[in-house]
Amino acid sequence: MAERPWTIVRGGLVLRGAECRAEFLDVLIQGDTVAALGPPGMAAPADAAVVDASDRLLHAGLINAHTHGYGSYTKGVGDRWTLELLLTAGAWLNADRSLADKALSATLNAAEMLLKGCTACYDLYAEAPVPTSEGMRAVAQAYRAAGMRATLAPMAGNQSFYETIPGLLQALPPDLRAAVGRLQPQDHRRILSEVDAFLRTEGDGDRIKVALAPTIPLVCSDDYLLACRDVAADLGIGIHTHIAESKVQALAYQERYGRSVVAQLDALGMLNPGFVLAHAIWLDDADLRIVGERGASIAHNPGCNMRLGSGIADFRAMLDHGVNVGIGTDGSTSSDNQNMYEAQRLASLASKVLGPDYANWISTREALHAATEGSARCLGFGGMLGRIDPGYKADIVFLDLGHINWVPRNDVVNQLVHVEDGASLRDVMVGGEFVVRERRLVRVDLAALRGEVERAQERLRASTAERRELAEKLSKAVGAFCLCLAERPYHINRWAAYR
Amino acid sequence: MAERPWTIVRGGLVLRGAECRAEFLDVLIQGDTVAALGPPGMAAPADAAVVDASDRLLHAGLINAHTHGYGSYTKGVGDRWTLELLLTAGAWLNADRSLADKALSATLNAAEMLLKGCTACYDLYAEAPVPTSEGMRAVAQAYRAAGMRATLAPMAGNQSFYETIPGLLQALPPDLRAAVGRLQPQDHRRILSEVDAFLRTEGDGDRIKVALAPTIPLVCSDDYLLACRDVAADLGIGIHTHIAESKVQALAYQERYGRSVVAQLDALGMLNPGFVLAHAIWLDDADLRIVGERGASIAHNPGCNMRLGSGIADFRAMLDHGVNVGIGTDGSTSSDNQNMYEAQRLASLASKVLGPDYANWISTREALHAATEGSARCLGFGGMLGRIDPGYKADIVFLDLGHINWVPRNDVVNQLVHVEDGASLRDVMVGGEFVVRERRLVRVDLAALRGEVERAQERLRASTAERRELAEKLSKAVGAFCLCLAERPYHINRWAAYR
Repeated sequence: MAERPWTIVRGGLVLRGAECRAEFLDVLIQGDTVAALGPPGMAAPADAAVVDASDRLLHAGLINAHTHGYGSYTKGVGDRWTLELLLTAGAWLNADRSLADKALSATLNAAEMLLKGCTACYDLYAEAPVPTSEGMRAVAQAYRAAGMRATLAPMAGNQSFYETIPGLLQALPPDLRAAVGRLQPQDHRRILSEVDAFLRTEGDGDRIKVALAPTIPLVCSDDYLLACRDVAADLGIGIHTHIAESKVQALAYQERYGRSVVAQLDALGMLNPGFVLAHAIWLDDADLRIVGERGASIAHNPGCNMRLGSGIADFRAMLDHGVNVGIGTDGSTSSDNQNMYEAQRLASLASKVLGPDYANWISTREALHAATEGSARCLGFGGMLGRIDPGYKADIVFLDLGHINWVPRNDVVNQLVHVEDGASLRDVMVGGEFVVRERRLVRVDLAALRGEVERAQERLRASTAERRELAEKLSKAVGAFCLCLAERPYHINRWAAYR
Repeated sequence: MAERPWTIVRGGLVLRGAECRAEFLDVLIQGDTVAALGPPGMAAPADAAVVDASDRLLHAGLINAHTHGYGSYTKGVGDRWTLELLLTAGAWLNADRSLADKALSATLNAAEMLLKGCTACYDLYAEAPVPTSEGMRAVAQAYRAAGMRATLAPMAGNQSFYETIPGLLQALPPDLRAAVGRLQPQDHRRILSEVDAFLRTEGDGDRIKVALAPTIPLVCSDDYLLACRDVAADLGIGIHTHIAESKVQALAYQERYGRSVVAQLDALGMLNPGFVLAHAIWLDDADLRIVGERGASIAHNPGCNMRLGSGIADFRAMLDHGVNVGIGTDGSTSSDNQNMYEAQRLASLASKVLGPDYANWISTREALHAATEGSARCLGFGGMLGRIDPGYKADIVFLDLGHINWVPRNDVVNQLVHVEDGASLRDVMVGGEFVVRERRLVRVDLAALRGEVERAQERLRASTAERRELAEKLSKAVGAFCLCLAERPYHINRWAAYR
């Protein structure tokens, strides 16, 4: 095997290491990995390709700890949807997708993330009615082709949302009750057998990792969760699921388990360093202590949590309990963009309205750490991604220091977290190779993609019209019922103006 | 006088009128004003200049209801600063600015807003130690030259912050108490006489309006406020001040006035349709009712309010009380950018974590209305700005519908508010003239501006070092004292995890 080629990136201001110090440094890359950092003008092999990074800020690619690739088709569709209304709409929004749609939606999601400085993500990808190895392979191929890293988890539940929120099914008018009765969930053995080939063969430990995503414990039976636990242990892969994203769910768990969802998962032996809890808003200190003790991670999605009115998760309490926290955007159906600069900013800002004691607020450095190294650990890429440092993959974003966002340059980390909106981004490198150059995707033809997506949308608008109508009818009943439920007392509060 | 020149903008998707319907329309402009909207291919005068807007979304320029131009120098300087810590730092951050600095900082602020789709702003500009007509004229000239509209208010108080928070001065160590004693506030007659020439001559009712900004009632004596009221009535101009931005201030008002700040201002006869209350976070229903009844406006700044941990203002309650609400970014010292797309998004998102009743959440249409027509009314430009409609000024932003933010296009208003981050912006027109073309400022040389700003910053870093040192010493004492104060009981709560 030939020696891996060298690249030397010269003249940039580099946000390096765990401390995120900004220093003028040259970056020597061998193959896909940072080999060395050195003073400007440092020696490099004679055959090294030279990249001029003068007047550029180099930061480690941001890492999206929680997204849903299929959601890229439906950005901006909803407003004033609670989580429960989103789940109601889900049966319409993600229906009737062809294999081509699966690849296209994943490509679109990857394209947006890359253009906004994000180089790796955890994508919980749902297929209706059931995940397939074929579909997930198409998704993996889409990320590979775009040049982005991803941890990919086929997402599915095996129970009906309408049956697992106590009292909801009974509260529906008879015609709607009959209609949702026909939305049959799948046997969990079928779910796992459908994706078995994908799980066993698609991960390469470098560009693509695989994982399992039982959607929400609420819509998963205990035997399904246990089967996931065993498959994950067997294959050495992670598990990612949505935990206590809404007060309605927190209440439903108390009724179903007689304890919190975290206590239940812990009793099932699910929690370990490969386990990621998405959202984790309505957890209390006892829950977070367990999560921390088991070495599990939380994927914090402040933008989506605000958009769905789920509440503001207590990021500081997570850190206090030793939990590794990554940051995500969530899928575009509920975020509605894939802008990780915004996501890390919202993680900082949201923490600052929890209360007056500013020592508890999340600092910009903590937010940036979560959006890079914290997320990397969520994805199972800890120690490989999330820093510009020797031994780490060369996943590097190049920002233009002449852009208005950096004029003047006062504090690099504060500005990266509180000012940058993605507009100063010029180039993005993944594994030493440019995948965005001068604000354009290198490996994706965006204009062609747009045409394909628009044609697909036109077809789907027609073919899902009936499901949409049902979802709209259901949403009135679901919204009213869940609002009543949400107003029941609970021992913690995550809303800003609520007693 | 020659007939004003015609321009016809053809082929765009136009977000028109108060309802913000998206329609393919041609836009006929005469001089600086929209003359007509018509179907694609509509007739236009033979000598009309033709602008091709195919594959562009046209929206009315966003309007920033609250900013501070001097803050552009200090974006990203702080993190984990409460409002009171920001005010403590203010004496350092805005010190020693030359006349050139005043113009440069305003140009920098205008440049960022224009590049991010904002075509008019309300700038409360502070000069130290006292506002001047010369300084404010330089600021006005900077906005004019950049091609942006502004309502400009010289901002000043006439009392010391340290003396007006009850107990704060006494709580400072003796050396710091002596040091702040030397920060002498100004006689209010001097403040008003210094800016008299500016107020009388600079406004043109079109590009620049003038107004008064007694900084915060907390640092203004009643006789100063009354003098502002009378000058404003005499000149027919507006007043803009910071109201109940923090719980500390709300408590201080109760102690000082024996009633709320709104009740006090109302008793002074200050509140009327020309009056703008910035922030208005810690107001209760009785206060908001008065504000609504007097026809005053609120400038809502959700990003800054989160960044300073001030709390989340109740936008819905404002609307319920008939208050006109505009949206602002606030100055870059506390926002830390001038991105109005984000500001309107945060207005929507923040409203959604106030509580579970989604009927009370602010919709994307309401957020967009506030960021355009609502802000226009705050600026005194109601009926002139904030819509693409005949008779309104041709202040139009052109977004690229081929950009990833618009692929696919599902709901234009939802996407404008919840997806757009400014990255799809291509061109900006103010009064029928392009001021941004292909993402570049037409009238400002950003590279030259950067050089000047960086040289200025270098000088200021040295000349303000002593003030910085004092501010850093003070911040420990101020922070600790105000935190104690903030933990006193109050009858409303605007924090998310606080009893």
